[in-house]
Amino acid sequence: MRAQEQGSGGCSEDLNIQRPHANHKKMGEQPCANAEVDPCPFEITEPTVLHKGEWLITRRVNWKQLKSGKTGTWEIAARPLRATKAEVQGVDIIATLSRGGKKYFVLVKQFRIPVNAWCLEFPAGLIDPNETVEESAIRELNEETGFVASRVLGRTRGSQPLDPGLTDDSVQFVMVEIDGDAPENANPKQKLDEAESIDVILVECDKLLSYLREHESKYQIEAMLYTFAIGHAMSQSAVFPTLNGVPKSC
Amino acid sequence: MRAQEQGSGGCSEDLNIQRPHANHKKMGEQPCANAEVDPCPFEITEPTVLHKGEWLITRRVNWKQLKSGKTGTWEIAARPLRATKAEVQGVDIIATLSRGGKKYFVLVKQFRIPVNAWCLEFPAGLIDPNETVEESAIRELNEETGFVASRVLGRTRGSQPLDPGLTDDSVQFVMVEIDGDAPENANPKQKLDEAESIDVILVECDKLLSYLREHESKYQIEAMLYTFAIGHAMSQSAVFPTLNGVPKSC
Repeated sequence: MRAQEQGSGGCSEDLNIQRPHANHKKMGEQPCANAEVDPCPFEITEPTVLHKGEWLITRRVNWKQLKSGKTGTWEIAARPLRATKAEVQGVDIIATLSRGGKKYFVLVKQFRIPVNAWCLEFPAGLIDPNETVEESAIRELNEETGFVASRVLGRTRGSQPLDPGLTDDSVQFVMVEIDGDAPENANPKQKLDEAESIDVILVECDKLLSYLREHESKYQIEAMLYTFAIGHAMSQSAVFPTLNGVPKSC
Repeated sequence: MRAQEQGSGGCSEDLNIQRPHANHKKMGEQPCANAEVDPCPFEITEPTVLHKGEWLITRRVNWKQLKSGKTGTWEIAARPLRATKAEVQGVDIIATLSRGGKKYFVLVKQFRIPVNAWCLEFPAGLIDPNETVEESAIRELNEETGFVASRVLGRTRGSQPLDPGLTDDSVQFVMVEIDGDAPENANPKQKLDEAESIDVILVECDKLLSYLREHESKYQIEAMLYTFAIGHAMSQSAVFPTLNGVPKSC
């Protein structure tokens, strides 16, 4: 449980939220996103804006649980919405690279100002207005790692929230293969802007979890990369000496 | 890239951040968390508080990239810090349940106010002040699902940020096994508070990804659950008809 039952005041402002996907409804005006599947358990008021920045909007809503009649407030960190063709604003890229007969996962080590630390993550980024999710994945992968994707295998649909107890930030995932033996991937060159500090890390696929465990005290490891590695190791037949607590197969 | 290069003003306030773990350093006063491993690429000022709520603090920092001299601001959503024995404030539980010779993953379907939608997630919660991470995992699992853990297999260390481009929110993961045939798990009773709306979902282990793909347009699926399922399916030898784009083995 991560229930919030109190909030504190601030300035008020009208919001006009437009999201491209049916999963995102305007609070206080329309029912919750999947009301057609399950009834909304809460009545939620139109949000009050507590602070509006360029990159972050802090909002407060009042909620009333329909069953119990209990009421409270919830404070939300929201990304200012940008119009995109895609259902979400961000994309994360799960990429495998083949080189010399071996297969690797492609990670980035990036300095993250909000946690004031170097983090291990999947390559990721914001989708540009006229891009599809797949186009964005190919571009972001190339900018952050220098690698040219050989094949897009597929992507998720809907909206995958990153921290839905606190923010409305969400992504979709794109699965990509990279031919690491191809000439265009012999000398990958990143195309970083000056505000980015990113190193590319290739980890042999069957060593991903042990790599993360070896580095978990040095680097912060983004939650969704860590769970990916745990899931991947769980169904491997080989025993990972460093697993120490991940159930073998399932 | 999710670079922020601009911010906008607000009130200022002194912050006194205390975190139990060396990975969390006070911005503007100490170097970044893992400076001993890699030098910090940015000089970051003491944060200005843009809004302080009970559950959410919005901050802005000024950053200067040491290499290029480029400067900018970053807006951050932070959880107000609570003292815990643990290195982080939150725990997520990756639980398998055995029943009648079958194995299941234990998920929760929870209404999340920040995204105004029902979400599929791992059981999770905030760590109480005097709990260890493992104790918190056992308690939260029992409260949210009614299940009594039979065995804690292990946990991650350090800090796993959930959305490190936007917030400082982070967790550790605990791996748990549940004996679904044991008497105490015959009639699991949730212990929810009135602000929670949570349904328990058991998904056969080898059907997790196909389950999520079937439900991705109905429910929002938390990013770290989705990547777990992709990782798990990637190294399965069987072909998943609904995978459609997840590389088979790696």
